[in-house]
Amino acid sequence: MPIDIIDRLESELDAETSRVSADVDDFFARLLAPTGDGRERLYEAVRHAAIGGGKRLRPLLTIAASRLFAIDPERALRVGCAIEAIHVYSLIHDDLPCMDDADLRRGKATVHKAFGEAEAVLAGDSLHALAFEILSHPATHDDPWVRADLVFELARAVGPAGMAGGQMLDLVAEGQQLDLPAITRLQQLKTGALIEYAVEAACLMAKLPADARTPYRGYARNIGLAFQIADDLIDHSGDETAAGKRTGKDAHAGKATFVSLLGAERARQQASFLVQQAIEHLADHGSEADLLLAIARFAIERDH
Amino acid sequence: MPIDIIDRLESELDAETSRVSADVDDFFARLLAPTGDGRERLYEAVRHAAIGGGKRLRPLLTIAASRLFAIDPERALRVGCAIEAIHVYSLIHDDLPCMDDADLRRGKATVHKAFGEAEAVLAGDSLHALAFEILSHPATHDDPWVRADLVFELARAVGPAGMAGGQMLDLVAEGQQLDLPAITRLQQLKTGALIEYAVEAACLMAKLPADARTPYRGYARNIGLAFQIADDLIDHSGDETAAGKRTGKDAHAGKATFVSLLGAERARQQASFLVQQAIEHLADHGSEADLLLAIARFAIERDH
Repeated sequence: MPIDIIDRLESELDAETSRVSADVDDFFARLLAPTGDGRERLYEAVRHAAIGGGKRLRPLLTIAASRLFAIDPERALRVGCAIEAIHVYSLIHDDLPCMDDADLRRGKATVHKAFGEAEAVLAGDSLHALAFEILSHPATHDDPWVRADLVFELARAVGPAGMAGGQMLDLVAEGQQLDLPAITRLQQLKTGALIEYAVEAACLMAKLPADARTPYRGYARNIGLAFQIADDLIDHSGDETAAGKRTGKDAHAGKATFVSLLGAERARQQASFLVQQAIEHLADHGSEADLLLAIARFAIERDH
Repeated sequence: MPIDIIDRLESELDAETSRVSADVDDFFARLLAPTGDGRERLYEAVRHAAIGGGKRLRPLLTIAASRLFAIDPERALRVGCAIEAIHVYSLIHDDLPCMDDADLRRGKATVHKAFGEAEAVLAGDSLHALAFEILSHPATHDDPWVRADLVFELARAVGPAGMAGGQMLDLVAEGQQLDLPAITRLQQLKTGALIEYAVEAACLMAKLPADARTPYRGYARNIGLAFQIADDLIDHSGDETAAGKRTGKDAHAGKATFVSLLGAERARQQASFLVQQAIEHLADHGSEADLLLAIARFAIERDH
């Protein structure tokens, strides 16, 4: 790719990432306005987790994919925020003492450290419900079929056949030596299903039939795995300040990762290959796919 | 009410309770069939909590209310099971060591006691997502507007403006002396919102406009509070074997309840008054309201 195009894509990605991050923060600030009653501590805990921080990759993906189909940006933002609400809930519950027992997330104290464990359970549960409230609201799409489909596919992606099932595989994996197919499946459920949904949601909003969604799901699946490998590389050798969380956790827990199985160099090559594959899925599109291209291109060139 | 009518209602309620309990168990057994992979421990934990046990009050309410509008019983059962999935998730999370730290539920070990805390968090999260998957599936209703509405109103009822908010009020209440309006509001969010939804869901399936739903919401609100008072009376003086959980918890935690504020005798009178009010909301209906009548009539005449 010519260097001037790479530079343009990178600066577009930076600008969009900033804009989407600000829009997501605004959305959550409006959704989670202070209650002025005894529930305020819960709302404060949810705001602590949901506002300010994170790469907002999932809303960015939904918004980038929705450009392919000229979806209204406000609606794409709503769907992106619903997905981010699920992502944040999963981080809160994953960080609990009975799960990863993490004290640092996105450069801040985790919810249970800042507010208490019971509050963290309830904050996660609240964001889980809010995601479905956002999707099913008429402002998300005129067509109720689309709203019901968005809900159904999200519920599949986050339930025991998706993210929650992946988290269970991760729990069971401790102390076991998983092989590459087993790690790939674990990650496809634990983090891949929601990333895939972030792109598929744009296809649902555009009312694409299931078979027409295949290339976009392929793109999302490839960059989901590439992102996971990049995360493993950061955990393996990364900088805690940049990561905003403790690194070296996986090696400490004796967990197999892409990096422990392949070594850092082959893991990097595998991630590059996945990015190439992701980009090929977009070959039929023109400049409306630039943001998706940029997300893929820089998926693995990050240090946090 | 003549004694022979009371006897008939009681035997109808018993028969329907048995039938609905069996149908709910069957539904969950099909939904949660063994996976044969590493997720099986999660499915086992969810089955432990969701199958066998409980009064199934919420599905019973949805099925009873759906008779008023001649809704297809299979569809009413699906909606009832979605609501029960939410109820069971809330019990699993409520029982966690960081919340009520309960070891006994529905006469069995709680999920975290039987499977571990991380498994309990994930089992609750799984049921939460499954509820929305069930509601949004086309088998629940032909009209996608109805499916999207069912999802939206459930999400409102269980999120921070509903059940999760009520649980927060309950946490904050520890060590405080709440008065009657504060306890009533706490219970209306914590348990009332989902019970109200169980009846309202039938109205949504029947496409009743919002103002036509008012008497049914009134019925549900009254019996929700009556049930809570009955629960407090059981906790105050009840039999642990019949209750299937520890009793005397609230007094031990220093929590105000309807019974601690009113005394047992006035609490019983208040519950009777609420049941009378609930029944009056059904005055326009004939025998198709018998099951709702019976639920109200026997709401407070139970020992578990």
